[in-house]
Amino acid sequence: MHRTRVRVIEEALDANNTIAAANRADFDRFSVTVVNLMSAPGAGKTSLLELCLEDLPGIRAGVLEGDIEGSHDADRLAARHVPVVQLNTGRGFGGECHLDANMVRSAIPALPLDELDLLVVENVGNLVCPAEFRIGEDARAMVCSVTEGDDKPLKYPLMFRACELVVVNKIDLLEHLDVDLDRLLSRIDQVNPGVRRILTSARTGEGVDELRGWLVQVAARRRVAA
Amino acid sequence: MHRTRVRVIEEALDANNTIAAANRADFDRFSVTVVNLMSAPGAGKTSLLELCLEDLPGIRAGVLEGDIEGSHDADRLAARHVPVVQLNTGRGFGGECHLDANMVRSAIPALPLDELDLLVVENVGNLVCPAEFRIGEDARAMVCSVTEGDDKPLKYPLMFRACELVVVNKIDLLEHLDVDLDRLLSRIDQVNPGVRRILTSARTGEGVDELRGWLVQVAARRRVAA
Repeated sequence: MHRTRVRVIEEALDANNTIAAANRADFDRFSVTVVNLMSAPGAGKTSLLELCLEDLPGIRAGVLEGDIEGSHDADRLAARHVPVVQLNTGRGFGGECHLDANMVRSAIPALPLDELDLLVVENVGNLVCPAEFRIGEDARAMVCSVTEGDDKPLKYPLMFRACELVVVNKIDLLEHLDVDLDRLLSRIDQVNPGVRRILTSARTGEGVDELRGWLVQVAARRRVAA
Repeated sequence: MHRTRVRVIEEALDANNTIAAANRADFDRFSVTVVNLMSAPGAGKTSLLELCLEDLPGIRAGVLEGDIEGSHDADRLAARHVPVVQLNTGRGFGGECHLDANMVRSAIPALPLDELDLLVVENVGNLVCPAEFRIGEDARAMVCSVTEGDDKPLKYPLMFRACELVVVNKIDLLEHLDVDLDRLLSRIDQVNPGVRRILTSARTGEGVDELRGWLVQVAARRRVAA
């Protein structure tokens, strides 16, 4: 008699990953690169997207806006002629503090995937749970405002580890803060060694070109792969 | 035959509220007033507590510090000789993004309740879930930093509604921000009409006396009641 082989199916019960894979397949079919953009509340995600997405050279970019309720950020982006779909977690999703694969899936029919090269998913403002849920994205990035203090990488390490890019925003305020930028950068490196960092100010525009360049690069990855 | 009366037990299945009531009974036994202090990451809860708790006139104050991991804030408070217990949600509680009644219950044996008049529970930095879980507190307060923008009451209304005090912090930075303080204050009032607001700067000390006064007042409520 043959020995019975036990095949361990580790992710069988993780519904989120199953649905994230389905999302990914849909994005792949339309060759849309997806960036999951996360941060604490008010770190400046929307302001940076306003600056980056309006004129992204040769790339058709859109946004899926995640909020508990309202469409404040979506309205801001729409005013800049960025195609945007609002996804609210308050109604039907229990006021969730993060987006998960299933919520994003429910928004896919509303997304003009055939008209996009790049989709940025602006997650709910929260440094904890968004890092725990894959949504079918190609890349994960976070915005960390210097006004939050230089201790955040140590207090929310999972978020900093989950991302391949940390945007350090509001650097125009550094001179008015008791925050040590070098210490912040070294703590980011401590929890996620070698992670790319871009210093920005949505107010002065500093670093915005570099962030735009990163988005172009991420979108190009898929084109090279395709 | 008598008509059968149906008694509806609405909270029977809400384990969190059951445990919160048990916490409350323990706090009551020792006449400890409990404040649940919430905010987004880096809004300045710990800095304000450092300033307020060191010299609270006639009141023995302690802190229960909630974080996902580490004891960064607890160490800061301990250095100011404030009795502090660290509660980490990372180990044993699945890295939760908030404190709930059960987590607080697990910390009660470590708290010197017989040596305290006031216990401030510094919740995990998050504007969503902490508002949904009672922990057995007497009062709920939040810190909202002006650096987060003037739209936060509209985006996280449940948090603003859950609190009887909104501390608007980092007002020393207002002159460097594109944030309209009047708009922020009117939006706070819009989601929670009449809620008390205290404007503070942990950096300049502005408003700290008023916040200290509020803490003294909250602690006195119980004394009057007792």
